[in-house]
Amino acid sequence: MAGDLILLAAVSVLSALQQCHFAWLVGKSRMKHKVIPPAVTGAPEFDRTFRAQQNCVEFYPIFLTALWTAGWFFNQELASFLGALYMFARYKYFHGYIQSVKGRLTGFYWSLIILICLTTLGAAGIGNSFLDEYLDFSIMKKLRKWF
Amino acid sequence: MAGDLILLAAVSVLSALQQCHFAWLVGKSRMKHKVIPPAVTGAPEFDRTFRAQQNCVEFYPIFLTALWTAGWFFNQELASFLGALYMFARYKYFHGYIQSVKGRLTGFYWSLIILICLTTLGAAGIGNSFLDEYLDFSIMKKLRKWF
Amino acid sequence: MAGDLILLAAVSVLSALQQCHFAWLVGKSRMKHKVIPPAVTGAPEFDRTFRAQQNCVEFYPIFLTALWTAGWFFNQELASFLGALYMFARYKYFHGYIQSVKGRLTGFYWSLIILICLTTLGAAGIGNSFLDEYLDFSIMKKLRKWF
Repeated sequence: MAGDLILLAAVSVLSALQQCHFAWLVGKSRMKHKVIPPAVTGAPEFDRTFRAQQNCVEFYPIFLTALWTAGWFFNQELASFLGALYMFARYKYFHGYIQSVKGRLTGFYWSLIILICLTTLGAAGIGNSFLDEYLDFSIMKKLRKWF
Repeated sequence: MAGDLILLAAVSVLSALQQCHFAWLVGKSRMKHKVIPPAVTGAPEFDRTFRAQQNCVEFYPIFLTALWTAGWFFNQELASFLGALYMFARYKYFHGYIQSVKGRLTGFYWSLIILICLTTLGAAGIGNSFLDEYLDFSIMKKLRKWF
Repeated sequence: MAGDLILLAAVSVLSALQQCHFAWLVGKSRMKHKVIPPAVTGAPEFDRTFRAQQNCVEFYPIFLTALWTAGWFFNQELASFLGALYMFARYKYFHGYIQSVKGRLTGFYWSLIILICLTTLGAAGIGNSFLDEYLDFSIMKKLRKWF
């Protein structure tokens, strides 16, 4: 059982650490630019850092949902690999955004593409399980028979 | 195993897509009202759109937790149905909020009522499992015997 | 199966209720200080309440990920106990932050320490499962043999 989701759990823990790291960078930026809490605006660089983290926060539960459904219903290894790529895209996004407003775009678009892949895999896996469960018809088994 | 949570997974993926859709609408509103990132205030319509999305973001992990505990420990079909209703309530909330500040209320109250239902089902299911696991006393089995 | 995660589910539902409670306190503070939505700034006390809730929102998915991996791969009882402590730390944080900016620190540092513990347990459990699954070498089984 645990083996079915060990890679997903590993990616989840790593991505949680990444989220913590982003929060910590916001704190560091607060100090650097002397933005006293609860203020969330100040120097432009702080504003960008804060928005970058907020955007990562917004997408984190979406990412986890897509990762786990893709990994559970389609393929754990592929989903985990895409999950690791997503973390890298978010890394690019975050550090690009700190540099400049335009700098966020590459990482952001990559993270979106990976999220679309994960969601598609998850939806495909769920659709197949639906057919298998309720109509006793499994596309994956058919494919395996043919190839 | 997978059959136990296929509907929950389907609702989760759909709600993740809805969250993406809300984020995309904020992006569109940014363009329309020329609110350049990282700014998060500008035209009143943009402010409302942004706050609507932020509120959905805040409640999304709460929703997922309530959905899965209700579905796992009480009844998958009922939880998934309530989950779909919650998505509809959030849709009403979001588009109501874009129109006017008052417009958010109907959808918001509905989403809260559904969240309370899901949490109650989850708590009831967990409570029953507790009794079953630690005291070997299952209310649901008793009820099934009587009716 | 359900018995493996009943305590984790109970802590998750309770923490979801706590998140709702925090959101409700922000709403109450809105009324008290007459901060009309979609505005998110106003009286200093409201600003602190709002930031306190936002910080709890940011860390909530991280907490859930750490709780479940620690509980699933290491030990359910210990993870649930730490989860309950985390909720208490967040309670101290939230109410401390409402009082003053400095008041948030004790609760915040405690919540971080607990999060580090949970993540460490989760990482240790995942690491052990990795060895067990892919190298057929289980540290926990060895330890159990020796003591």
